[in-house]
Amino acid sequence: MDFVAKNLTKLRETNPLVQNITNYVVMNSTANSLLALGASPVMAHAMDELEEMVSIASALVVNIGTLDEYWIPSMEKAAKIASDLKKPIILDPVGAGATKLRTKTALKILDFADISVLRGNFGEIAAVLGEHGKTRGVDSAAYDSNEAIELSKNAAKEFNTVSAVTGPVDYVSNGKEIYAISNGHPMLSKVTGTGCASTSIIGAFSAVDEPLKAAVSGLTVYGISAEMAFSEAPYPGTFQAKVYDWLYRIDEKLVFEKAKVNKFEI
Amino acid sequence: MDFVAKNLTKLRETNPLVQNITNYVVMNSTANSLLALGASPVMAHAMDELEEMVSIASALVVNIGTLDEYWIPSMEKAAKIASDLKKPIILDPVGAGATKLRTKTALKILDFADISVLRGNFGEIAAVLGEHGKTRGVDSAAYDSNEAIELSKNAAKEFNTVSAVTGPVDYVSNGKEIYAISNGHPMLSKVTGTGCASTSIIGAFSAVDEPLKAAVSGLTVYGISAEMAFSEAPYPGTFQAKVYDWLYRIDEKLVFEKAKVNKFEI
Amino acid sequence: MDFVAKNLTKLRETNPLVQNITNYVVMNSTANSLLALGASPVMAHAMDELEEMVSIASALVVNIGTLDEYWIPSMEKAAKIASDLKKPIILDPVGAGATKLRTKTALKILDFADISVLRGNFGEIAAVLGEHGKTRGVDSAAYDSNEAIELSKNAAKEFNTVSAVTGPVDYVSNGKEIYAISNGHPMLSKVTGTGCASTSIIGAFSAVDEPLKAAVSGLTVYGISAEMAFSEAPYPGTFQAKVYDWLYRIDEKLVFEKAKVNKFEI
Repeated sequence: MDFVAKNLTKLRETNPLVQNITNYVVMNSTANSLLALGASPVMAHAMDELEEMVSIASALVVNIGTLDEYWIPSMEKAAKIASDLKKPIILDPVGAGATKLRTKTALKILDFADISVLRGNFGEIAAVLGEHGKTRGVDSAAYDSNEAIELSKNAAKEFNTVSAVTGPVDYVSNGKEIYAISNGHPMLSKVTGTGCASTSIIGAFSAVDEPLKAAVSGLTVYGISAEMAFSEAPYPGTFQAKVYDWLYRIDEKLVFEKAKVNKFEI
Repeated sequence: MDFVAKNLTKLRETNPLVQNITNYVVMNSTANSLLALGASPVMAHAMDELEEMVSIASALVVNIGTLDEYWIPSMEKAAKIASDLKKPIILDPVGAGATKLRTKTALKILDFADISVLRGNFGEIAAVLGEHGKTRGVDSAAYDSNEAIELSKNAAKEFNTVSAVTGPVDYVSNGKEIYAISNGHPMLSKVTGTGCASTSIIGAFSAVDEPLKAAVSGLTVYGISAEMAFSEAPYPGTFQAKVYDWLYRIDEKLVFEKAKVNKFEI
Repeated sequence: MDFVAKNLTKLRETNPLVQNITNYVVMNSTANSLLALGASPVMAHAMDELEEMVSIASALVVNIGTLDEYWIPSMEKAAKIASDLKKPIILDPVGAGATKLRTKTALKILDFADISVLRGNFGEIAAVLGEHGKTRGVDSAAYDSNEAIELSKNAAKEFNTVSAVTGPVDYVSNGKEIYAISNGHPMLSKVTGTGCASTSIIGAFSAVDEPLKAAVSGLTVYGISAEMAFSEAPYPGTFQAKVYDWLYRIDEKLVFEKAKVNKFEI
């Protein structure tokens, strides 16, 4: 998949500004992930500056991880502005399914905004889809490869977006094609905000390619960086530091050597 | 103290969900501490989702470190719900004594909620107790072993809870028994959020044992992890990463080798 | 510049309490930077406790990085209280120039509060100055040594403060004298919150010396720590951990060996 390597180089040449309206837990780690990779993060959520900030950003990431009544209007306003300006919007429905507020908020944003990529784990995407008239809902926590493929495809069709269902294998679909990415490492689940970081990294790649390939590029690059990190530091604290190191060090050559990306027609 | 080692194994088998309504400074490090240890963190504070979130959590941690007029009602509502649901609640009265707002907020929550464990340093617990009709107040910042023992015992009795007064030696009491834990390392005081992390780790252990033993287990496991971290990295930045590593690596054998826990009857 | 080394020792002897009303992204890293260096951080922003908290702090840092309608009044109130109490206030106008809200908020605080040190990068200080009746505004993003010197001098005069324009070389001026500090490392730009950390470290030094020398001391010590960190860890994740290590390890001897500070009369 040559486009992943090429997008990495393009990203570093353009140094895109990615605006994140994200949760408190991961603001620092998200910013560091974007910086290490070669993008520029900005975290800005004030109602009075959204118009200006979205207009200078190359992509908007909305992550509902610590949503509340003050942040939801900000997320919605930013998504509206970005839609109007045709900027790519990446939505991370953190915890959808765990509470109605989360599922409802994710669905509302999916409804009125033009979401480029919806990135979540199996349970989150299933919850969002289940609440939207499908049978598969919050209960289906068990992960199954075929189910994840179906889910990715169905979410993409239902919401007219690219959906990225991440897990042991990541499935990314636009409803017609599916990419399976087998990079990454289980140690990522022992560090907070790694899913959120991958979402924002997809945001950065959305500045240099169309949504489907941007999502595949982001997840592949992040996954390889995690693999390299684990090879040097097999425990979560030092592993986390090494993930940043490898987001900085990864280059086209490493992508060609390590990428495990397969494409299927549906 | 066999129960510490056994609780560690139980914790990892059950992977308890710990809800944290905590301060902005430590959200990331708290989540990483819980993940490394083998628990699942969730940070959620929106009024509209507290009912659902508390009901699926195994324990609630309330930490007032960056409290304000928007967060206090959320802390109070969550503590009320958790009390009604008989979920363990751990309270960390960060900065009690420094401002009246902090002391007052901690006292209010102690009054109406059923707090399982109150965890703070000497000054914080003394401040909370002092404001509650005792003579020892904010002024007694000087640390003294006998004073800490008395404080731990008195706070437990006064608030009908388990109190954990942490410092060079940690004292944990239910008003009748006292445990003294001599694990830990002074370097912890050079990293932000280590006290807060220990509070949330007590929350995780509260899902697998009663409050007194949960608090002893949490502080012992955290203290040993810090000692191991320091033996590999004696400076604060790399030390912090290694603490996460050792929260992940610590096992029953290491607990048996390193635990310095003594029990006294009062 | 003997005063830098002496201030470092003084700082550690006095362990000053630095109150930070800062952005969500950097709260954790700022606290860790201050702790590693030998100061005590406190993050507190609740309207109801500002009076008490500012009164026990040795310096106040106001950083507008994630400002909003709830935080701006808190920043303003704290700055007013600190001015009345003659406490040093350090202002970091993060993102000034990017949105009108940021530029306006920074200017308002500069107008009514007695700011000891204004610390920002070239674009931010230029934006603040440009909006205040000067021709150089948001557009002048290009960095030029002579321009930075002029900017530092002009900002100091215009706002009757010490201005610190940081970049490849940092320029610190009170309008009459200028210090040029050539310490630091480009890798700092690959880690979020390093500028913010330097601002808070200037806050810590403001507790032990007058603003001009405090700013020079803070930037020099931070810059040397970054250089040492890079010599041990040339990638951003492990580099960040090592910066904390070296903020802890740096001593008078290292300052004498490594400081690159020059003073010019204007």
